[in-house]
Formats: sequence, structure tokens, C-alpha cells
Amino acid sequence: MTRESKATLEKITALCKHRGFIYPSCDIYGGINGIYDTGPLGLMLKNNLKRAWKKFNNAQVDTILYMDGALIGSQALWEASGHISNFNDPMVDCLNCKHRYRTDEITLDGPCPHCGQTKWTEVRQFNMMFATNLGASSDQSSVAYLRPETAQTIFSQFKNIASSYRAKLPFGIAQIGKSFRNEITPKQFLFRLREFEQMELEWFCAPEEAHKFFELWRHARYNFYKTIGINPEHVRVRNHDKEELSHYSSATSDVEYLFPFGWKELEGIAYRGDFDLTQHSTFSKKDLSYFDEAAKRSYMPHVVESSVGVDRLFLVTMFEAYDEETIQDGDKEDTRVVLRFHPTIAPIKCAVLSLTKKQSDQARVLFTELKKAGIDTVFDEAGSIGKRYRRYDEIGVPYCITFDFDTEKDASVTIRERDSMKQERIAIADVQKYIHQKTTYKPEF
Amino acid sequence: MTRESKATLEKITALCKHRGFIYPSCDIYGGINGIYDTGPLGLMLKNNLKRAWKKFNNAQVDTILYMDGALIGSQALWEASGHISNFNDPMVDCLNCKHRYRTDEITLDGPCPHCGQTKWTEVRQFNMMFATNLGASSDQSSVAYLRPETAQTIFSQFKNIASSYRAKLPFGIAQIGKSFRNEITPKQFLFRLREFEQMELEWFCAPEEAHKFFELWRHARYNFYKTIGINPEHVRVRNHDKEELSHYSSATSDVEYLFPFGWKELEGIAYRGDFDLTQHSTFSKKDLSYFDEAAKRSYMPHVVESSVGVDRLFLVTMFEAYDEETIQDGDKEDTRVVLRFHPTIAPIKCAVLSLTKKQSDQARVLFTELKKAGIDTVFDEAGSIGKRYRRYDEIGVPYCITFDFDTEKDASVTIRERDSMKQERIAIADVQKYIHQKTTYKPEF
Repeated sequence: MTRESKATLEKITALCKHRGFIYPSCDIYGGINGIYDTGPLGLMLKNNLKRAWKKFNNAQVDTILYMDGALIGSQALWEASGHISNFNDPMVDCLNCKHRYRTDEITLDGPCPHCGQTKWTEVRQFNMMFATNLGASSDQSSVAYLRPETAQTIFSQFKNIASSYRAKLPFGIAQIGKSFRNEITPKQFLFRLREFEQMELEWFCAPEEAHKFFELWRHARYNFYKTIGINPEHVRVRNHDKEELSHYSSATSDVEYLFPFGWKELEGIAYRGDFDLTQHSTFSKKDLSYFDEAAKRSYMPHVVESSVGVDRLFLVTMFEAYDEETIQDGDKEDTRVVLRFHPTIAPIKCAVLSLTKKQSDQARVLFTELKKAGIDTVFDEAGSIGKRYRRYDEIGVPYCITFDFDTEKDASVTIRERDSMKQERIAIADVQKYIHQKTTYKPEF
Repeated sequence: MTRESKATLEKITALCKHRGFIYPSCDIYGGINGIYDTGPLGLMLKNNLKRAWKKFNNAQVDTILYMDGALIGSQALWEASGHISNFNDPMVDCLNCKHRYRTDEITLDGPCPHCGQTKWTEVRQFNMMFATNLGASSDQSSVAYLRPETAQTIFSQFKNIASSYRAKLPFGIAQIGKSFRNEITPKQFLFRLREFEQMELEWFCAPEEAHKFFELWRHARYNFYKTIGINPEHVRVRNHDKEELSHYSSATSDVEYLFPFGWKELEGIAYRGDFDLTQHSTFSKKDLSYFDEAAKRSYMPHVVESSVGVDRLFLVTMFEAYDEETIQDGDKEDTRVVLRFHPTIAPIKCAVLSLTKKQSDQARVLFTELKKAGIDTVFDEAGSIGKRYRRYDEIGVPYCITFDFDTEKDASVTIRERDSMKQERIAIADVQKYIHQKTTYKPEF
């Protein structure tokens, strides 16, 4: 299946920079491959996605505790997790032009895509963690690593958290935070990054309940995407084959999204068994087992993980939202660019506009009220009303509220809906409730 | 001035771990010096502090845009900022026992505090940035650094942001995010860390307005601490002497807090002039000046910075809040540990308790309502009511709501206030409004 869409990676990348969603990091110095800064609008969108993720998961189960682990981890931690020995990408260099590739990007008995020669180095294993040194010495003992996933900081603190909260199984520990992978070939804008953000939930349970919870999260996490307005035809669940499974997992399903470059992983749901806690228990010589008071037995909890990249999800919302539409402007045709974000994740919920400067004072009062009520709102009194509509279409503002010549008479304004461009007249007193109802995220589908 | 307090660093550190505020990172592997994980309660408290910081600053001025920059920065960025040549700590080693010190921690003609000998190495400059390598090669060209401050990612994106938002001076760009400093001797729990979080606001303005805004932010930022319930006697503003000023600043004031170990910097407010934008302009050869349409002239904006550490502020709130109190329990005396957080920053706002299991169902209904309304609430039906009060005192929950034997008759509950331990009776229907009013942060003083 391919997909027809007006969104290309190039258009999205350009719009993101132009309108303040995402900028290349160190842009004025030529950027860094695979590393980006998040601009004001991008940050608002990401925050809305994170909030939705939390709210949705919290609605599925009784207890999820949230933590925020350090980004620098000790060698001991990453040895136990298996990342020092296993977190490798096989790579080769072209002996002629020195270009470097992951082996899965090329055909080793074919020519180099860059220079056309067929002279490859041996395949080498390249560890994808970023290493650094703690303290002033630089001997091996001081080596530390930027974490390649948030999950291990959760596992290593499982016992501390369970005991601080006297938490009873089943319960979850979740984390939203940065992770780092030294990708040989970062690519496709935000799709494969060196510095990125993850949302991970580790669900701890009794071994005999793990299968039930794997099913629960597999369905729940698939359904999540409907709640933020992703077209269900662009999302599917794919179960990993036996050969595909990681060494720690006995069942994994990917939620995949239909990008313009094909079906790709958006989220992984993995049944990790007791692999991680057992590893950390063995390596740290600390007992990480759980005593089940009701059953009067001790065991290592089993874990169902769900893991999604914030940046990749951000990219998905951009691909879903981007549209170009031919519209009639008087007697000439024009194209409008519009981001059709679901109102609950749109970075800015509404724009308060005044037709002329005369209505500005009154409009500003509403603007301030909406802001105080916690609704992300902009105020704009400059330029033609049509131009302003287009400006807010392009950043996906779902509602434009206009103060016009009749407003003084009827204490009403027009609300223009972004997608349909339809306008309705509504009393100023009802605006806040209207916007609040339309733009508050609900974890239902 | 010294300070009488029952809070010691040891007690705070232990409570933080025991009750799930802060854990040593990689704890099961012996921890890492100067690096911590934030537990569920700590994360809630930090989030409340961040929210207050944003809300307070937003209330002072018209426009602040928020961004989130990458943590890994290129060599070019940190050369321009001056961090590669200037961000050093002078250090010495004891030749006898090999202990390492920052020169300001010891007397160089005195003995080593560890072994008592007086044989020092030469003083060396030690750069405090964490270095790593991008990509698979490790030549000099691939060196990158973890950022030692969030400020430079703001300066380097000033032009992109100003143009995306067509922003007019004066306006601010702010950021909350991780920074990293390879401290030789991290110390005092969260006071001096290797991995920490900053809240920085860079206020851009016309040169002739900079002095006015320096005064505005100096006063505003000092006043902020009152709004989150810090005792004004524990906070002061100290202006830097000429000799103390950084090379980039012509005026700096520190907001200091009276820690048990003396007055120490909590926040810096610095007039940085146009130093940073000029440096980045020179090094990148990109014009970063601003065209002032009203005045029809082009100039480099001047900057007033305010910068506070989230972790240090967290520590301040713990010192402020911690108390031990002798109370009468029947005819015997007892000590209660209580965290007297200001209700607006307390991680959990209220605990819903039922006197016996009989009232639990009804109590749970209120609990769910409060949670849905976005109020951080716990539900607890286990243990004696006195024990439960103590448990929530120790994590600073300002209100305990108890369903008792009369509740069914009068549809009312008791609300016990943490600090005074006074109880009042209130209709269930009024609880949400009551808690909301008492615990919503207001940027007023």
C-alpha cells in the first residue's frame, strides 16, 4: 500500500523551520547531523502529545508512577543491561571514497552508492552509545555513557520506587525523557535521530498475568492513535516473527505508521519477561524480587513495555496534518497550506482577532481571559483578516475568533473553524467554554 | 547570620530517598557522584516549580517564547561562546595520596585535607564540559560537547525564532532543560551536580532599555520566591563587585538563599550586553542583528539573563519545608516530621481517606473526581487515621479529607490542614473548589 499525500519530507522540514516548530541544532554553524532544537510551536505540540500519552495511559489502569532518570549512566548499568556488548550496528566503509554505511543500507556485493566502486572494508560492530568521562582523569574507570533508552533507569530504580510507594503489583513506572544513539547515518528529518525523546511505560506484573497485560497494552496503545486524530488506515499492528524478536523478548508487536516512505515502526510493545530485573539483580548482587503479600510468595516481576519516540510521533502528526487545498478567493484560485491537527493536540487552540483597531481593546480582554484559563491563544490585530486566517491555518490553529463591527451591538463574535472554514456566531460569554470543550484531550475512542 | 533549623543535609537526603523524591542514580551499582534520578514525588514537585516559574515570568511581561534546545552541541558553538577556552576550573592533585581538589577548596601552602602532606602538583586548568564523539570515527572533527548551560542554544537560535514569530523587541526566549558540568568535586547533595536542570530566561531589548529591564528582572526574580512560600528572611540580593563580574557582564546580581551551610547563590541575574550575539555573529559570519522598524535602525539586541537551577531550587524548598514538631498523642509526646510546602508547590495536594472500609466507595468517587479535575490526589483506606496523617505530613500533603461516620448523614467531610492540624467540616460538594483555590499558584506577592 502506498499513500497519496501532499506532504513530503522536504515540505514538512521547511515548514517546521519557517514557522518555528523545529530548527537544525547549531544551525548558524551548519547544523549537526541528526540533532535538532525544538522551537516554540514544536514544544507546545510535543507537550500536548506527552500530556495525551500520560492521560491515555492513566485512564487504562490504576497506578502509573512517573520518574525522571539521569541521562548519564555508569558503565556497570550498561554492562548489566547488555548494551555494552549487544547495542551494535554492523557497518562498512567504502575503501575508495571513505563513505560509511550501515550494512543494511547497502548490498555488500554491489557498488558503493556514492562512488560506484565495490571495495568494502570488513564488517565491523559499532557500539551506538555515546561515551564520555566523569571527573578529571580519563582512565577506563571513569567512562560513562549517555543512555540509549530510558527503560534501564526505570529497571534500576524499580526496588527503590516500589518501596518508597509501598506499591502493589501490578503497577507501572513511566518516563518521558531524552535518549541518545550514535547513529552512523541519521536520516529522514526526525525519523532517525542521534538525540531524541522517548515515552516509555514499564508495566510490572505477576508472571501469570503478563500475557493478559501484553494484550491489554497492545490494544490500548494501538487505540491511542485514534484519540489524537490519526487516520486508522495509516496505523497497523505488526507482530514480530520468532526470528525478529530481541534476545530479551518473547513477544513484541510494533505499531506502524504509513509514512510517505512506507510502513515504519512508531511504537514497540514488548513482553520482556523478567530479563531486565534478573540481569540487574545478577550484576548488582541486589535482590530485586517482589514479595506478594496476598499470595505469600516472592518472585521477579514480569514486564510489558510500551515505547514510543516523541519526535517520531511529532513527525507523524505533521504528516497527518499537512494539507494543501485549492480555494476560491473572489474570482481567482489560491492554495492554502493548512495543518489539520486534531484540536486536542494543536499547539495553539485559538487566535483572537479584531477586524479593525477599534475592536482591539475588547478582543484583548477575551484574549487575556483565555490565557488565564490556561488555553494557548494568540492575539493579532495586524493585516487583512484573510491573510491572518491563512497564517493560523499554516500552524494549525483550529479556531479563529473575530471581533467585528457587530460585536459591540450583539456581544458576539464569529468563530471560524480551520478545516471547513465555516463560521458561526457565538456570544463572547460562551467562547471560553466552547474552546475548552473542543480542545480538551479525552482518552476515549 | 546563621540559621536555626531542624533540617540537615543528611536528613533531607535520607527523606528524599525514603519517600521517593530523589534517588542516587545507578543506586544498585553504588551510585555516580553528582548524578541523581528524580522519583515520582520529586518529579511532581519539580514540575510545580517549573510551572510557577513560567507563570510568574509570563505575568511580568508581554512575550516570552519557550524553546527546547539539543543537549549535544558542536565544537563551533562552544568555541564561539567562549566555553572551550574559558570554562575551566583550576585544580591540583596531592602528589602523595592522589586526591584531587579545586584550588578554591584548599590552601595551596597548607596540607592535604586527606593525607596531611603538603606536596602539590602544578595548578592545571580543567575544562568542565563533557566531551563525546559523533559518528563512528573519533578524530577531532567529530568532537561534540554536552551543553554546560541552556543559554547558548537560545542565543544561537535567536534569529530563527525572531523571524519565525516576527517578534518585536523587547521579548524573551526561555528554556527549561538539562545541563552538564564535569565538576571535580560534586557536593552537598543537589547543590553542586554534574547533571542538573536549568530554567533560563534571556530577555532581548534595545541597548538603551537594558538598564531598566535589568532592574525589572532583579526585583521580579527576587519577589518570585515569596510567591512559592520561601521565607523572605532567607533570601537576599547581592550585587557583584566589579572584580567579580564575568567577562561578558557589566552588571550581575545573585539571589542568595540561606542554606544550613551559609548564604549561597540560588539564581543569577546578569546584564550580558550584546556579548553573546556578537560572538556568535563573528564566529558564524551570520548577521544576527535586529532591524527596528519603528526606529528604522539596525542593532544587536542587548540581553538581560535570569538563570536558576531547578535542582537547587528543589533543595531550597526542601530546606524551607522540613520541620520536626513535638506533638501530644494522648498522654505521650511524639515527634512528627512535616514538610511545610506552600500548597501551590506541594507535589500532592490532598489525600482522600476513609475512616473505615465502609466509607471507601464514597471516598473513591471524590478521589476520582479530583483526579479528573487535574488535582494531584492520593486515596488511602489502610491503617489508623493518625498514622495516615503522619504519612502525608511527611511528604507535605497540605490537606487530608476524611470520610467518617457522619458523612452519610450530612454529606460532609473533615478537612485537616497539615501545618495547624486544625480540622474543619465542609460539604463534599465544595471540596473541589476549596482545594483548587488553596493550591493554584498565583504569581502575586
